[in-house]
Amino acid sequence: MIPNDTIVALATPSGAGAISVIRVSGKEAISICEPLFKSIRNKKLTKQKSHTIHLGHIVDENRYLDEVLVSVFKGPHSYTGENTIEISCHGSVYIQQQIIQLLLRNGCRNANAGEFTLRAFLNGKLDLSQAEAVADLIASDSEASHQLAMQQMRGGFSNEIKNLREELLNFASLIELELDFAEEDVEFADRTQFKTLVERIQFVLKRLIDSFAVGNVIKNGIPVAIVGEPNVGKSTLLNALLNEERAIVSDIAGTTRDTIEDELIIDGIGFRFIDTAGIRDTKDVVESIGIQKTFEKIEQAQVVIYLIDSLQLTDEHLTLLKTEIGKIKNKYPQKPLIIVANKIDKLASSHIEQLQAEIENIHLLSAKENIGVDSLKEKLVSFVNTGALRNNETIITNTRHYDALLKALEEIDKVHYGLEAGLSGDLMAIDIRQALFHFGEITGEITTDDLLGNIFANFCIGK
Amino acid sequence: MIPNDTIVALATPSGAGAISVIRVSGKEAISICEPLFKSIRNKKLTKQKSHTIHLGHIVDENRYLDEVLVSVFKGPHSYTGENTIEISCHGSVYIQQQIIQLLLRNGCRNANAGEFTLRAFLNGKLDLSQAEAVADLIASDSEASHQLAMQQMRGGFSNEIKNLREELLNFASLIELELDFAEEDVEFADRTQFKTLVERIQFVLKRLIDSFAVGNVIKNGIPVAIVGEPNVGKSTLLNALLNEERAIVSDIAGTTRDTIEDELIIDGIGFRFIDTAGIRDTKDVVESIGIQKTFEKIEQAQVVIYLIDSLQLTDEHLTLLKTEIGKIKNKYPQKPLIIVANKIDKLASSHIEQLQAEIENIHLLSAKENIGVDSLKEKLVSFVNTGALRNNETIITNTRHYDALLKALEEIDKVHYGLEAGLSGDLMAIDIRQALFHFGEITGEITTDDLLGNIFANFCIGK
Repeated sequence: MIPNDTIVALATPSGAGAISVIRVSGKEAISICEPLFKSIRNKKLTKQKSHTIHLGHIVDENRYLDEVLVSVFKGPHSYTGENTIEISCHGSVYIQQQIIQLLLRNGCRNANAGEFTLRAFLNGKLDLSQAEAVADLIASDSEASHQLAMQQMRGGFSNEIKNLREELLNFASLIELELDFAEEDVEFADRTQFKTLVERIQFVLKRLIDSFAVGNVIKNGIPVAIVGEPNVGKSTLLNALLNEERAIVSDIAGTTRDTIEDELIIDGIGFRFIDTAGIRDTKDVVESIGIQKTFEKIEQAQVVIYLIDSLQLTDEHLTLLKTEIGKIKNKYPQKPLIIVANKIDKLASSHIEQLQAEIENIHLLSAKENIGVDSLKEKLVSFVNTGALRNNETIITNTRHYDALLKALEEIDKVHYGLEAGLSGDLMAIDIRQALFHFGEITGEITTDDLLGNIFANFCIGK
Repeated sequence: MIPNDTIVALATPSGAGAISVIRVSGKEAISICEPLFKSIRNKKLTKQKSHTIHLGHIVDENRYLDEVLVSVFKGPHSYTGENTIEISCHGSVYIQQQIIQLLLRNGCRNANAGEFTLRAFLNGKLDLSQAEAVADLIASDSEASHQLAMQQMRGGFSNEIKNLREELLNFASLIELELDFAEEDVEFADRTQFKTLVERIQFVLKRLIDSFAVGNVIKNGIPVAIVGEPNVGKSTLLNALLNEERAIVSDIAGTTRDTIEDELIIDGIGFRFIDTAGIRDTKDVVESIGIQKTFEKIEQAQVVIYLIDSLQLTDEHLTLLKTEIGKIKNKYPQKPLIIVANKIDKLASSHIEQLQAEIENIHLLSAKENIGVDSLKEKLVSFVNTGALRNNETIITNTRHYDALLKALEEIDKVHYGLEAGLSGDLMAIDIRQALFHFGEITGEITTDDLLGNIFANFCIGK
């Protein structure tokens, strides 16, 4: 199962920069590179210690391709667990290609997406959920998503799963032992103790499963729907929220961020603003098909902002709005809803008071005068359950893990039922084995080629 | 003059990739990084040998930012000649920024463009023309431009200049010695020997100056003007030339190459096709203002392709074309001109023969049938004087060097004149000193802050 060949890929982003790193991994990585590298001090790469760096030239026959630094890592003390060479060359696309082509001609092959990390997994350098965290870490763009990926990569989640699995395994072997002595009707596994364990596993599984709700939104950004009539100032609101944050976002991600312009990081947590521009364009506020579209947007959202242009408010209008808000509250009683009245700097204080009296908890905002912007941000963040995050609890973010945990819980529930009903060990043994199987799927004790293929296809090449 | 502070920059292209490298250089580089790096094996960075790599985490107080590899280089054995740390982190833009900000808070400052290479120059790791070659190397996108940059970076040109300078310096000191004994009318410097040297320097300078013609076009691509009436098939011709080459170009540069779609690399040499689409749109071929525009394009080009749609040729038309071609040949007798008749696959052989009889050396081409495409490429390459390139002679590519060489030659010519006219040493000494000054400008023995500022401003940040 562990591959025998030597792979090569550019490990740094493509394009021109000061330097680029080309990564070579496999049994022959060092010996393939040795004749292609002319060390300044005539050193042979195969004779060098692991974790050392050497200056010289990559030479194609007599042609000097580049002056490079070559880093030597000897397996198993490398990322992949195999012999690894990293060539740090000048950041010319031409040079990158020349060196990679030279390596391909000399016995390497192009690495597939995620293949270095796949090899790290196959060589036992990290388990499957840690490997998945590597891709999450690279994709992380906020403090919270970064923290979750980092925690998972460092094995927080795996350890929790492994511990449960081990304890369950102990009991499983006792139960299976009973089966061998079935005719003697003995009980090696203490049923009370076992029930306590099963209940603890149920508790942990439920907590992990529940954590997915927050983990998933933190990883992908919390979807926020801004609803309201057209032209009430959605972009003004977004700009007010973005304000300084936007500058930080641009600083970080440069031009690539342009495509997701309505993503915003507040207090280290990503929010995705769902475009609801022009969702309703009839004057009949209550009965228009617009309300249906609004509902669809709200379905997708975790938090809803209902935006009101406070300058456009007639008494009649206000009544219609209140009906619409009532409908939303009625349909989605659990969904956080913030009703925001903007442009309040232009409103007489008597009007403001009226508004506050008519609509409960209305959030007053003036982008221009910077009133209510910070408190709106605080409200948004308050809807995210960051308690677990702050307490460094394990939070799961991966749909695959979520599915496996659900399946494991289902089996554990069956075991629990079996214990309560006093079922015989052989019946429970099947459910326990199934639960163990699903635990193993998470950390990768149990894998299939298909599963691995799916997971690593989402990686970038070079990792 | 040598700076005392510690600089940091991302050395790999910005954006997300598998890994990124952050470079830190300066007296305090290692000591600044030490407390921010938690080694897996509890190693202290300041205690580590140069050219070693260490696995661990970058930690901001108690927050784990990333698992990284840290490379330690101790001055003067580093690129800059200073203590240097390279942090190889996961390729998340968020993580890059977090680590760089952490370093900035701990005493580093953001590096300016080219500042690492500037420091390498100031610390005597490379001379000025070698430093300039680093930027050229990163920008190189063809075999030829790469070879020139590589040769210059490895010191080929500098050595040639340094040798001339040294010999000249020897004589200069003898001449200056004579000045001290002026009243005794001695000649320490053998005038015959000196004349031989001066003539040799003249010869070398002329050769280098001449090489700029080829060096400059190889560096920037050889400009080719395709002229002819509108709709004669310019893009068909370009596509035919690009054909397989285009695939290679895209392979190398990915999407970034889109903007210079009319650049083409043939046999390792870059050609830039100057857009001459629609330069003439009156039917009066000879006297139109179009011919003036055509001339302007030809001025800018190194090679001219005159394209004829062989299907549109009436006898009258042919006569007009011949007149126009005659005018071009007359005005630019030295400029290589290739007259290409396309679509010849659709032409009767009698017409082809007529065409060949009427226009000397006409190049027959059919993009569709792939006739004459390869031979056209060969012709284009043949106009580039690749002799010097093949013989590994020093070729200069840099306008600054060209200017300095011209000035040096001017002074050397004066010295030569002085020798022939039997001028006294004190007069020649001034010219020799001026020539030495211009030599020194090239390799950087003589610099000003302005000059350095100009040169390194063209570098990317992180190099």
